[in-house]
Amino acid sequence: MQHSHGFHFMSATKLAIVGVGKIVRDQHLPAIAGNPDFELICTASRHGTVDGVASYGTIEAMLEAVPAIDAVSLCMPPQYRYEAAYAALNAGKHVFLEKPPGATLSEVQDLVRLADSKGLSLFASWHSRYAPAVEAAKAFLASTKIDSVHVIWKEDVRHWHPNQAWIWQAGGLGVFDPGINALSIITHILPHALFLTKATLEFPENRDAPIAADLHFSDVTQTPVHAEFDWRQTGKQSWDIVAETAAGRMVLSEGGAKLSINGEEKLSEPEREYPALYERFSEIIKAGRSDVDLAPLTHVADAFLLGRHKFVDSFYD
Amino acid sequence: MQHSHGFHFMSATKLAIVGVGKIVRDQHLPAIAGNPDFELICTASRHGTVDGVASYGTIEAMLEAVPAIDAVSLCMPPQYRYEAAYAALNAGKHVFLEKPPGATLSEVQDLVRLADSKGLSLFASWHSRYAPAVEAAKAFLASTKIDSVHVIWKEDVRHWHPNQAWIWQAGGLGVFDPGINALSIITHILPHALFLTKATLEFPENRDAPIAADLHFSDVTQTPVHAEFDWRQTGKQSWDIVAETAAGRMVLSEGGAKLSINGEEKLSEPEREYPALYERFSEIIKAGRSDVDLAPLTHVADAFLLGRHKFVDSFYD
Repeated sequence: MQHSHGFHFMSATKLAIVGVGKIVRDQHLPAIAGNPDFELICTASRHGTVDGVASYGTIEAMLEAVPAIDAVSLCMPPQYRYEAAYAALNAGKHVFLEKPPGATLSEVQDLVRLADSKGLSLFASWHSRYAPAVEAAKAFLASTKIDSVHVIWKEDVRHWHPNQAWIWQAGGLGVFDPGINALSIITHILPHALFLTKATLEFPENRDAPIAADLHFSDVTQTPVHAEFDWRQTGKQSWDIVAETAAGRMVLSEGGAKLSINGEEKLSEPEREYPALYERFSEIIKAGRSDVDLAPLTHVADAFLLGRHKFVDSFYD
Repeated sequence: MQHSHGFHFMSATKLAIVGVGKIVRDQHLPAIAGNPDFELICTASRHGTVDGVASYGTIEAMLEAVPAIDAVSLCMPPQYRYEAAYAALNAGKHVFLEKPPGATLSEVQDLVRLADSKGLSLFASWHSRYAPAVEAAKAFLASTKIDSVHVIWKEDVRHWHPNQAWIWQAGGLGVFDPGINALSIITHILPHALFLTKATLEFPENRDAPIAADLHFSDVTQTPVHAEFDWRQTGKQSWDIVAETAAGRMVLSEGGAKLSINGEEKLSEPEREYPALYERFSEIIKAGRSDVDLAPLTHVADAFLLGRHKFVDSFYD
């Protein structure tokens, strides 16, 4: 006989999505459709809509019109996230923040306080941490001594972010938009907290966000961690984390999907990052708490603070 | 009859200073000389020495040679502070960090963990918070409704930081070196946490740190806070915080030394910031805890992260 724990009978969390774009269509909608804990009841977006779901032009109009909403997923560019999160929390809704959780550290800290004061759940989602091989990589690294780590995150911005103006504006993060995924993984799998020791950021002359970054970190055990982010990569794309360890070379590749140790493939599974994110969101709502790790965004802020800013050739889509 | 509480008989904390420069001679030495809780027993510095006090070329040599040291004050440029703080904490010493406490947020967070794990006191000192009129300003603001705040921090870098190369290098903070003093005051006296909404940073073409910054903040009550930092100010120097409130205009001027409300001077006392800092350091050592508020440095990192970076005329000393 199946144990019955009350929550089997809880009705689904009534969810709204704000900012309907590519990531929502590619990832959020399938993940929500596959999770019985959530029911998508409406959206707010300037342009995008979802077939068969009520849509509104602004989050304010939506919150006003649909009091039944329990939670909102905020998927607009980070520069506009605080205002929407503030409105949602003030209206008593749980909030799922796409990555990065905001345009500044202080605004996210402010949202954490607001969520706490209202007894609501705030989720700063880091999807790459839920890539299939990430936990296995973490377990491997915990079992050995790490000599050095090399992160290579090189992709073609024209392919992955065609004509996304906001990503090149101040606060749009530039190459740190993908790079923060790498940072979210290494801050999760490495045994000690990192800190940046040296950085160079390359800004196209005609843009307000970097197209490349070269970052050197250390930790309390002085293990060197070198990360290279570049948006000018054509041909083979790289989202790899390589660790030299006492037990050999670990390669976590394809953005965390694949793990090999000393050339031997240990794990390669289809990714289900967004389904896992919504499982986690449901879990923290049920537990009545928030999940906001600021470490990845702190490293990005540190890179802008400490890094040399270099100008390079203009970039045109 | 005087009460006797044990600690009257505690011997003074044996202190070492690392990085003997202008701020040490102007501020630290007189403050330490006037505080019976501290006894300066040695220094480490590449160039500077203190008359009659044993000196060493490096902190490592000093820690090795003088095991009696209880605490160290780290007064070198922020880019070199982590390494020294790490060495001192690992050697079991309490640590006083000059402002800013480090070159990145993450490294300071790492030091906090290290100090906690060793039961040592770490002090991120913000001297401007101890300016004479700061507490009175805080009390006034708590008693009324604030409509807006304007911070004007404009000084002549050639006068205050002549030929200080490190301050213009990446991680040296540029105009945020004085500006962080203003941020340390407003984060202390305003009733709600701030977050940056818009910023412009002006970098001289030949330097890696900004010469001016224009910052717009808000808070959970949407009170606008505007800060202007400029290092090109000749003539009258300004370190003023002006608040328009329901009870009139408050002006906290001269870096926190003077308070007036509606044009009426409320308080003007001689400053004793560094004596107060050492009193606080002694207090946290006795209480067995740390005092590290990262808010001012977080706002600086946020400004570099969110701000538009603009190039302006080259700067020569």
